[in-house]
Amino acid sequence: MKTSENNCRGPMRPPIEFYFDFASPYAYLASHRIDTIAAKHGRPVAWRPFMLGIVFKTTGAQPLVTYPLKGPYAARDLARSARLSGVPFVFPPGFPHATLAAARGFYWLEGKDEVLARRFAKAVFNAYFGEGRDVSGAEAVAAIAAALGVDRTAFEAGIQSPAIKERLKSETEGALAKGIFGSPFFLVDGEPFWGADRLDQVERWLANGGW
Amino acid sequence: MKTSENNCRGPMRPPIEFYFDFASPYAYLASHRIDTIAAKHGRPVAWRPFMLGIVFKTTGAQPLVTYPLKGPYAARDLARSARLSGVPFVFPPGFPHATLAAARGFYWLEGKDEVLARRFAKAVFNAYFGEGRDVSGAEAVAAIAAALGVDRTAFEAGIQSPAIKERLKSETEGALAKGIFGSPFFLVDGEPFWGADRLDQVERWLANGGW
Repeated sequence: MKTSENNCRGPMRPPIEFYFDFASPYAYLASHRIDTIAAKHGRPVAWRPFMLGIVFKTTGAQPLVTYPLKGPYAARDLARSARLSGVPFVFPPGFPHATLAAARGFYWLEGKDEVLARRFAKAVFNAYFGEGRDVSGAEAVAAIAAALGVDRTAFEAGIQSPAIKERLKSETEGALAKGIFGSPFFLVDGEPFWGADRLDQVERWLANGGW
Repeated sequence: MKTSENNCRGPMRPPIEFYFDFASPYAYLASHRIDTIAAKHGRPVAWRPFMLGIVFKTTGAQPLVTYPLKGPYAARDLARSARLSGVPFVFPPGFPHATLAAARGFYWLEGKDEVLARRFAKAVFNAYFGEGRDVSGAEAVAAIAAALGVDRTAFEAGIQSPAIKERLKSETEGALAKGIFGSPFFLVDGEPFWGADRLDQVERWLANGGW
């Protein structure tokens, strides 16, 4: 028995924790890089959607776009950063939308199939920020899941279940307890990194084990 | 007559505008890189201190350290980023201090000697964030200028002159009019970049003329 080993490649290494809200455009940019960076260093990634709006109630912050000057700058910076990395980017009309259904959908799927849950998360991000589609309602999110072969009725029931509602609540409280105040947010062996801007440092931290 | 040329190297190229508040630790980090980056691409840098607190009155923002969770994270992030780039960093006790005298001092010196003004700016930043010294009062700032050979009495009188007070006010209003809401902030041929994090993009923009 090799319970602590991973396909004979040695002991399973602890995951990079990737905390994000589906409504976070910088998290969308990060979602295109984090798995590749982690894999290069033999590390899995735990994708952890949470409700940034709940965290903002504690910290007093507001959605980026609501800030004068900073909001318009961010729209420009996002488009520019996306172009630089060759990632399609559209600012979704009516942004920001509610992302409760998407986050619950992720955890419901994760309970069944972790790989599928990650494909779902990427599909939600790409629909939202790659194509500018509205992903706020249960129906829109269920359609994304259905396109990945998920039973739509089961999905819609699943995201309404008390267990899934509780799971998202507890993930959000857990994020806050870990000091997470923004999205995207990465924990690398406990070391916190905030923002898509910090992925180069995340990569270096993984390579060197700190500095 | 070659009035538009710069030492036979061709036409003088427009400066990178580097807007900052002396109380901004991320601007301190940027102050160690911006001149080198610009020089690599044959560009001068116009250092432009302004009063971030005045801008915050318009935008409703607050000093970084006052935000719950984000404040403590920033302290860690700054120390970590400084270590990575080999720049000494101390969080000054009692941070943030008033930086009115330093900013006025810069413009007073600039009117006499641009190179000296830049040396003064670097000395203020290094005293503040490299050594953790209090640089808030006119006396502290005058001592820094005096160490660079500046006449202390003239300096202390200069920073109290109506013209210099007006100059800083107008630079701050000008920054706000250009949409500058944070520090450090760079304008490269009108393209805005916010944050020490964006210096890699600034460098690429200079190399490619955009993307």
